Amino acid sequence: MRTKEIFMNHIGERGLQMQYIDLRSDTVTVPTEEMREAMYKAEVGDDVYGEDPTVRKLEEMAAEMLGKEAAMLVTSGTQGNQVSIMTHTHPGEEIIVEENCHIITYEVGGVGYLAGVQTKALKSNKGVLNPADVEKAIRPKDIHYPVTSLICLENTHNRAGGTVTPIEIMKEIYEIAQKHNIPVHLDGARIFNAATYLKVDVREIAKYADSVMFCLSKGLCAPIGSVVVGTKDFIEKARKYRKMLGGGMRQAGFIAAAGIVALEKMTKRLQEDHDNARFLAEGLKNIPGINLDLETVQTNIVMTDISKTGMTGKEFALKLKEQGILINGGNDFAVRFVTHYYISKKDIEKTLDAIEKIVRQF
Amino acid sequence: MRTKEIFMNHIGERGLQMQYIDLRSDTVTVPTEEMREAMYKAEVGDDVYGEDPTVRKLEEMAAEMLGKEAAMLVTSGTQGNQVSIMTHTHPGEEIIVEENCHIITYEVGGVGYLAGVQTKALKSNKGVLNPADVEKAIRPKDIHYPVTSLICLENTHNRAGGTVTPIEIMKEIYEIAQKHNIPVHLDGARIFNAATYLKVDVREIAKYADSVMFCLSKGLCAPIGSVVVGTKDFIEKARKYRKMLGGGMRQAGFIAAAGIVALEKMTKRLQEDHDNARFLAEGLKNIPGINLDLETVQTNIVMTDISKTGMTGKEFALKLKEQGILINGGNDFAVRFVTHYYISKKDIEKTLDAIEKIVRQF
Amino acid sequence: MRTKEIFMNHIGERGLQMQYIDLRSDTVTVPTEEMREAMYKAEVGDDVYGEDPTVRKLEEMAAEMLGKEAAMLVTSGTQGNQVSIMTHTHPGEEIIVEENCHIITYEVGGVGYLAGVQTKALKSNKGVLNPADVEKAIRPKDIHYPVTSLICLENTHNRAGGTVTPIEIMKEIYEIAQKHNIPVHLDGARIFNAATYLKVDVREIAKYADSVMFCLSKGLCAPIGSVVVGTKDFIEKARKYRKMLGGGMRQAGFIAAAGIVALEKMTKRLQEDHDNARFLAEGLKNIPGINLDLETVQTNIVMTDISKTGMTGKEFALKLKEQGILINGGNDFAVRFVTHYYISKKDIEKTLDAIEKIVRQF
Amino acid sequence: MRTKEIFMNHIGERGLQMQYIDLRSDTVTVPTEEMREAMYKAEVGDDVYGEDPTVRKLEEMAAEMLGKEAAMLVTSGTQGNQVSIMTHTHPGEEIIVEENCHIITYEVGGVGYLAGVQTKALKSNKGVLNPADVEKAIRPKDIHYPVTSLICLENTHNRAGGTVTPIEIMKEIYEIAQKHNIPVHLDGARIFNAATYLKVDVREIAKYADSVMFCLSKGLCAPIGSVVVGTKDFIEKARKYRKMLGGGMRQAGFIAAAGIVALEKMTKRLQEDHDNARFLAEGLKNIPGINLDLETVQTNIVMTDISKTGMTGKEFALKLKEQGILINGGNDFAVRFVTHYYISKKDIEKTLDAIEKIVRQF
Repeated sequence: MRTKEIFMNHIGERGLQMQYIDLRSDTVTVPTEEMREAMYKAEVGDDVYGEDPTVRKLEEMAAEMLGKEAAMLVTSGTQGNQVSIMTHTHPGEEIIVEENCHIITYEVGGVGYLAGVQTKALKSNKGVLNPADVEKAIRPKDIHYPVTSLICLENTHNRAGGTVTPIEIMKEIYEIAQKHNIPVHLDGARIFNAATYLKVDVREIAKYADSVMFCLSKGLCAPIGSVVVGTKDFIEKARKYRKMLGGGMRQAGFIAAAGIVALEKMTKRLQEDHDNARFLAEGLKNIPGINLDLETVQTNIVMTDISKTGMTGKEFALKLKEQGILINGGNDFAVRFVTHYYISKKDIEKTLDAIEKIVRQF
Repeated sequence: MRTKEIFMNHIGERGLQMQYIDLRSDTVTVPTEEMREAMYKAEVGDDVYGEDPTVRKLEEMAAEMLGKEAAMLVTSGTQGNQVSIMTHTHPGEEIIVEENCHIITYEVGGVGYLAGVQTKALKSNKGVLNPADVEKAIRPKDIHYPVTSLICLENTHNRAGGTVTPIEIMKEIYEIAQKHNIPVHLDGARIFNAATYLKVDVREIAKYADSVMFCLSKGLCAPIGSVVVGTKDFIEKARKYRKMLGGGMRQAGFIAAAGIVALEKMTKRLQEDHDNARFLAEGLKNIPGINLDLETVQTNIVMTDISKTGMTGKEFALKLKEQGILINGGNDFAVRFVTHYYISKKDIEKTLDAIEKIVRQF
Repeated sequence: MRTKEIFMNHIGERGLQMQYIDLRSDTVTVPTEEMREAMYKAEVGDDVYGEDPTVRKLEEMAAEMLGKEAAMLVTSGTQGNQVSIMTHTHPGEEIIVEENCHIITYEVGGVGYLAGVQTKALKSNKGVLNPADVEKAIRPKDIHYPVTSLICLENTHNRAGGTVTPIEIMKEIYEIAQKHNIPVHLDGARIFNAATYLKVDVREIAKYADSVMFCLSKGLCAPIGSVVVGTKDFIEKARKYRKMLGGGMRQAGFIAAAGIVALEKMTKRLQEDHDNARFLAEGLKNIPGINLDLETVQTNIVMTDISKTGMTGKEFALKLKEQGILINGGNDFAVRFVTHYYISKKDIEKTLDAIEKIVRQF
Repeated sequence: MRTKEIFMNHIGERGLQMQYIDLRSDTVTVPTEEMREAMYKAEVGDDVYGEDPTVRKLEEMAAEMLGKEAAMLVTSGTQGNQVSIMTHTHPGEEIIVEENCHIITYEVGGVGYLAGVQTKALKSNKGVLNPADVEKAIRPKDIHYPVTSLICLENTHNRAGGTVTPIEIMKEIYEIAQKHNIPVHLDGARIFNAATYLKVDVREIAKYADSVMFCLSKGLCAPIGSVVVGTKDFIEKARKYRKMLGGGMRQAGFIAAAGIVALEKMTKRLQEDHDNARFLAEGLKNIPGINLDLETVQTNIVMTDISKTGMTGKEFALKLKEQGILINGGNDFAVRFVTHYYISKKDIEKTLDAIEKIVRQF
């Protein structure tokens, strides 16, 4: 029996996400009962004075797990990425990013507003940048040019379908970066999914980046919070920017308490989500009208093209909702499914049945 | 018996702030047992999708209490102030502020970095701006001048010693602002202390501002969080800036749950903190070498000048710490005491005894 | 006899660009004798007070020629583009640009630093954007997304080799922009070259943009200055940003005086430069080892790939310099030639001879 | 006979400023005939390639005169100040300024928009800062505080009435700055007026600042342009910001040519303007209803309070205009008179006569 059941007994009826099979995102995960208990009992203090022992414990644990000197709790992945970029760069510089990365797609244009940097957006192969392209994009010195001051990677890559950049590519890009004295920031929102796929310790990925942001929420089920890791100097500088953005919190130990459970327990169970995603993908592959590239189904995300069904994503999502299943669907034909702790193999079976019926009837 | 005791039995020994009489700030307040329980049982959802029922409840309650159309939970007072300024203004404009206000003193220069606005900082009388000065500071139209696009007030005024701007002054400034089509933002971090002092409903203050930020932490004891209120349009625009700063959280209902208790229970008990501050101030007044202006002791803050004792604030703070009492003291002679929920009249008596002894011995 | 001769008699021996056949750029053009005389006799006043009659005359003439309500003199094309972007947008928004456009390539990262906007950079076909790509790049409304607030075009397109976007494409993109309520800015640094190529009045191009920047220097030979045109409101707002960037000048009539000559005389003679570029391109095409796409040779720029010669651009440039010919050459194999007023057909013949010799000898 | 006459014969009737005694500002000065000739004959090149010999000559001359390593021509004082601030600081920091300085009063809010810094504005004694106030305003290290990263001085101080900060005060502030590792920028728009008043070489003032901006226009009569001086590193970095603001010009030697005459000739004749200002001030002092502080009449500016005349500045200016005299007058009672090269002692006599008549009649 999984914590979800205990939790539901304890808390009783609660919002949308418990009544539905919710495949919209792993951000919909509510905390486990163990997390709620940890929050309830959390020892807290004023973190602006550095006196919250639970925050300190989480930050030490995170730094140690990722193999970096220091860590800082932030309120979201967006805050972690933006503060990292602000800390690495100076307005007027240019950063290299993948053209569909989270940083420029989903962070409200913060790169221009906050860091004041231009982006050089590169094409990739299923989310994996070509090191040669990265090197070519670094600007030579010239009065007309902004200075290239940061390379941003994303592993796993969300919009490419949760795809993983291999260690060797990380390494190659990092070596190019070092040759040019340019830091690398890794948006590792789902870095534990990448490590699970690669069957390596998460440090093996983190070591090819100067700073890493990863999320305690999403697949790890904590209700709030992400962490940035890097050198002591980097984190000290970043704390000031976090404060400026309003991310300096008082008794933040409540958030950290759930985060500690996330790191201790939830990082080890992600293979189950990947297996469920694979199972879903293979099932979908057999449904006429649904196209997907099985090669990109590496972690907990399944990206599909439903154009052949004749439905838009939105229409499809509405029909699935009637069957008790939630997905995100827009005006185009791309439909994304995300598995997580609250999705069982049985939920996938129900989902496949429902989709088959919908597609057939349409 | 107060919740502190129950809470300590339940959780056991916990950090610095419980072993000391902590007069450094009301930000050190840990949540009450009732808040912990509310957090434990909180119904939550993904607030980025607008699906967290507890956050929705807190925001509705806050809007209603302050008499505004809409509200938005933010992670800190700094975030609330900065997002409000970003929403009201456009980079290159100028805002009018009091010269020692929190916004330009303690928010890490965010006004320049984030909003990109210049500040016109006005002198005040114990934190209370002169409406005529405000009107004079509004720029006429001229190609050389930035446009004046916001007036910021702070009530109670922190650095002036928790002083309260009277309703009539609020009203007069608001009328000037309206005449010139300039919005007013109120940093009401401690607006409930102001309302308690003025013996008015908090709406009577809030109605003379277009947007108000107030804190759930500080005197209200919630562990994390502040709220911004304003028109629906304003809040909708502000949500986008909150997201950009990384203040968009997932299952934020845990924070909101404590905030609801703060609003329901803690807003009504602040007179006790004011009485304790008064009691402390009158006691300090009688200790030779300690100077203070009793007129400014209106709420829960006591500002003193200890220069006549021959000690710097830092030396004084160290000596008090040996007696189990915490205050903030720097290299100058200004010493601030702040009362709150975890400070009893007995604590004040102990504090006065300790100070008397220290001053006498020095 | 052309003005160059008079000018050289009058002034005597003067810098680099007169002793060499200078094909590096049309920015190297010095003013004609007529421009010098116009500057000498210019009636001037304090333009910050709006009292410079020559500036006023130039601005009226420019607005009229481009078919817009108002115009503003700026000190450079970069200033004109950046002020236009600042005026059209708000920090945190996103603008659509061609991936190799001048704005993001050569303007020192100003888009991020000054306007604080993100860029969505689109691929093009030889500098010509695909209207469907532009429409697809416009963001739908979503809390995660920046608002798309500007589309930037460049006609002729510098890095694509001076290529021209046809009127129908301009129109199609403009109609998409209007449908979405998004303004269009045209970087028309060399818009008169585009009009010459298209054999249309420059207004026919300008009418498919809300604002246009064009240069008085470059092919038009004025020593300093560009002009931004648009609606009266737009220009009034832009003047404030120009002042902020330090582009508000005092007796700017000297610059305007040369600009008036540029507009009256030099806009009509650009076919000659195009013919010379064509002549050069056809000659180069016959030299073994030099590759170029004749289709892109539409105006006064010839882009070549010299990789088959075995030389880098830098080596090639050094060898040409020994022969009295200047070009820009870097560490790769792309070599650009630009024709202008001070390049005659005879200069091209000499250049072709020199190149043939160099390539043969290498 | 002064150049004005030659110039008028040569050019004939020209705008407002020649028909009137124009006391509005020294920015209204048109260039001398010698400057026009220098411009006509100027040897020029593409300054973006560093090939304009006249610009190079001006920059070397300026660096040498001010006693600094390097210099850079900018298009205006505003551009010079803003680029200097951008170069010295990083967004999110704080700069110390005098509360009525040009930088925050007349530069369109650029400090917030461009540099993204907050300002700590200090009161002064007639434009002269108190070194102790400066030291007190430097922020200690604290997570809540922006870093203090620049001190800006203004000598002569425009809004205080052209008052001069003595060498000893400059020195004292500079030593404080050095002790705290904070650079000093001097807005020396009228530094040659200060040097004339202090009877010192301009280097004696410049040596107490890390960067200095001074104007070639204003009292020195060049039509366009200011210069920034500082270390080689500083100027190299500043050139990139100048380019970003659009201040990189092509054949800028025309501007530089007039600037060279300004530096060689006009810097030595400012005592005449000061004498005329003094003569004007003493005359005004005797006119009933006009108040002024003779102590502040140190250079070429006379600030008066005409409130006792019963007229506003605007009404007063209109009446003077009828008499052929121009001044700036607003809706308050402060009226400023500025003397310059085109104002003779006879002009002052006429002005005094006209004012006496106006005041008597009113």
